[in-house]
Amino acid sequence: MKIREILNNIDSYVDQEVEVNGWIRNSRFGKNVGFIELNDGSTFKNLQVVVGADYSDYDELSHQFLSTSLAVKGKLVATGNNKTPYEIQANEIKVLGESSEKFPIQKQRQTLEYMRTIPHLRPRTNTYRAVFKVRSSLAFALHQFFQQRGFLYVNPPIVTGSDAEGAGEMFNITTIDPNEAPMTEEGSVDYNKDFFGKKAYLTVSGQLEAEDYALAFGDVYTFGPTFRAEVSNTPRHAAEFWMLEPEMAFADYNQAMDVAEDMIKYIIDYLLENNKDEMEFFNKFIDEELFDRLDQVRNKDFARVTYTEAIEKLQESGKEFEFPVEWGMDLQTEHERYLSEEIVNGPVFVTDYPKDIKAFYMKRNADGKTVAAFDMLVPGVGELIGGSQREENIDELLKSFEENGLKEEDYQNYLDLRRFGTVVHSGFGLGFERAVMYVTGMKNIRDVIAYPRYVNALSNQN
Amino acid sequence: MKIREILNNIDSYVDQEVEVNGWIRNSRFGKNVGFIELNDGSTFKNLQVVVGADYSDYDELSHQFLSTSLAVKGKLVATGNNKTPYEIQANEIKVLGESSEKFPIQKQRQTLEYMRTIPHLRPRTNTYRAVFKVRSSLAFALHQFFQQRGFLYVNPPIVTGSDAEGAGEMFNITTIDPNEAPMTEEGSVDYNKDFFGKKAYLTVSGQLEAEDYALAFGDVYTFGPTFRAEVSNTPRHAAEFWMLEPEMAFADYNQAMDVAEDMIKYIIDYLLENNKDEMEFFNKFIDEELFDRLDQVRNKDFARVTYTEAIEKLQESGKEFEFPVEWGMDLQTEHERYLSEEIVNGPVFVTDYPKDIKAFYMKRNADGKTVAAFDMLVPGVGELIGGSQREENIDELLKSFEENGLKEEDYQNYLDLRRFGTVVHSGFGLGFERAVMYVTGMKNIRDVIAYPRYVNALSNQN
Repeated sequence: MKIREILNNIDSYVDQEVEVNGWIRNSRFGKNVGFIELNDGSTFKNLQVVVGADYSDYDELSHQFLSTSLAVKGKLVATGNNKTPYEIQANEIKVLGESSEKFPIQKQRQTLEYMRTIPHLRPRTNTYRAVFKVRSSLAFALHQFFQQRGFLYVNPPIVTGSDAEGAGEMFNITTIDPNEAPMTEEGSVDYNKDFFGKKAYLTVSGQLEAEDYALAFGDVYTFGPTFRAEVSNTPRHAAEFWMLEPEMAFADYNQAMDVAEDMIKYIIDYLLENNKDEMEFFNKFIDEELFDRLDQVRNKDFARVTYTEAIEKLQESGKEFEFPVEWGMDLQTEHERYLSEEIVNGPVFVTDYPKDIKAFYMKRNADGKTVAAFDMLVPGVGELIGGSQREENIDELLKSFEENGLKEEDYQNYLDLRRFGTVVHSGFGLGFERAVMYVTGMKNIRDVIAYPRYVNALSNQN
Repeated sequence: MKIREILNNIDSYVDQEVEVNGWIRNSRFGKNVGFIELNDGSTFKNLQVVVGADYSDYDELSHQFLSTSLAVKGKLVATGNNKTPYEIQANEIKVLGESSEKFPIQKQRQTLEYMRTIPHLRPRTNTYRAVFKVRSSLAFALHQFFQQRGFLYVNPPIVTGSDAEGAGEMFNITTIDPNEAPMTEEGSVDYNKDFFGKKAYLTVSGQLEAEDYALAFGDVYTFGPTFRAEVSNTPRHAAEFWMLEPEMAFADYNQAMDVAEDMIKYIIDYLLENNKDEMEFFNKFIDEELFDRLDQVRNKDFARVTYTEAIEKLQESGKEFEFPVEWGMDLQTEHERYLSEEIVNGPVFVTDYPKDIKAFYMKRNADGKTVAAFDMLVPGVGELIGGSQREENIDELLKSFEENGLKEEDYQNYLDLRRFGTVVHSGFGLGFERAVMYVTGMKNIRDVIAYPRYVNALSNQN
């Protein structure tokens, strides 16, 4: 029986015989009695198992190492003690699989850096069990939010033939052995002989495909892995990460912001309701301001200011920034955080950025200088979401291609959407791991990805 | 307003003025009246818009092409007609985006083969709207099934350093330009200088990582893209496809089969309840036996026979197969279908296969010849799910490495799971697209993947 099953139906089990499995997460054995903190993974908190010194295998049990697996039979009792309200008074404990003194996670606190060297074992610790449980819940909450609103889940391809998505450095996918590569007559590698018959890449974004589906289904979202071959070694970047990209037809960027705001509030509510133990752990041990910050976001209407207004306010603030503030610049994290934390004092959408610092597909505003883009900035983090209305007018889009040096022939499918019943449409992107970091207070992206991938980091196993 | 919103709350909208957007999916204009089948993607069925010949732009409207986008205002009325119970009597119709005679999907039926050449536009047709809506619902139903049971959603890495997952041909991921590859002193390409500092591949399975997480969280599942670089050109294979891989600690293979059976019944119930229109479309136009087949699976206890019994029954049947039946062979689709369709007359688990035809990690049975593996066979398709209990005994696992020619040093993490609190555990894999084909009756995997990838197939756009 799962420990969760017992705790969720505690009235049926108190004073009854129960049978559970689990791993020893902690134990202390005295002269008269031994205590084992047992965990089967079904709950965040351990269940205490009490065993009397008169138990036949008491001595053997007292020498078991952390992570030994056990099958325990005994009576579940209410202790009257708030901290461990229930325990099992064991009458039979069977060792399923022994551990040893070599088990690399010992009782004393070990660093997260060390834990990253044992990705296959670190989910057996409190911090990572809390992280990966919340990650799982957050993924489901996002699915549920969009499905309840009738959005279609679409899976854009991971393998792409286009190096023109314009979002960063790409990885090449090949079955060619470069030691024996087929060559063209001109003496370069002949990708026509590669698996896909041409050069193939890992996707950096599913947005363009999401637009195809939005113009058939109205509201859609993607949620899956994306890749950047960037040689950056920061706590916020990984080569492989998950992105959520909703795309909505018949919606301008104000409506997209409404959805983004509702979504953020929904997932915070979901986690606080469904992952109480884990969230309390984060608030207590990882980031003491977490609940305050999340409450602020849940309960406030998000402000909306234009980029131009934001620049003025930053300039008027008199604050000295590392990067001086002037119209036309991209906002840095220092500006974003100052805006949301000091000026707005809450979450804020900054809208209508200069077109020269934004992507080619964004809807051009009537002023000729800005685009209908938005970023969601939140206290403590800065940018969490980026989005825009898309240019639905084919003439304006072709103008943008020209200004951005893009070739029309590379985008015929994308142009078809504007040729055959074009409509106003908008979307945004949420970096999933950034969101996990935001709702947990974890500071390094490598601690919220099961097997993080970045430059020179790829263990042989896992 | 979305058309779904209106139809879901029809009593509040009948005889009221409504405002909807959508694309023209069909239209016919007569002397006195015009009919437009409008669809905004929020419902499978179109909503009929009626416009009188006295409408100012009647003539212009009558010349609009399929896929033109419109904004329509008018009164929603009940028709008393079963086939189109509601319609909008339009008093204002605005053309949002024109289409043209070049729109490649015309009224006459076009083949699925042709549709595959326009992946960005085919979701505007009935068949593909039904397919991709059901695909989306099925993905969510799977998440919901496992989340409700407390399973953790884990994302194994797409990029892997191991070519030893043993499930098929792999793609290489690289940032090396083979025309200017860094070379070792021995004169071969130096992958130490590649992005990840070593040779990297696209994953073929997340099972080994799922085991890591099952031994911390008890019950987990993966759901994401996997890859095979197989040069097979069949209607059932793709180079990129999604896999669902549940993994359960403290569960033997019988318990894993229970979960697999519950899961299949759950998803069928979910689709028949939540996707009525789409499922009726499939039963009517794609596969007339679909509902019968799904009902049979929903309402029956799945049979369980051992491989050895299955071989005997196939031999006793007297049926002549292309591949003669003998103990030790792998079952072919012809055998699998005969078993489930003719012998069992329903879904069946075949268990305990010869170890020589199964993977290295499967739990060895006491007979020394078979392993605790299972395949789920269903009428009309054959194998839908494959799974097994995993070898949790380190000595037996090392024996299997030796027999399978695997190197111990490549699997140290995997062995750690058996060193530090090993437990009985089991899991299975469901090819997601196979499942979509199964529940829709679609016959080609290329019609259930938005942008299918296979040998020599990778369009420049999408």
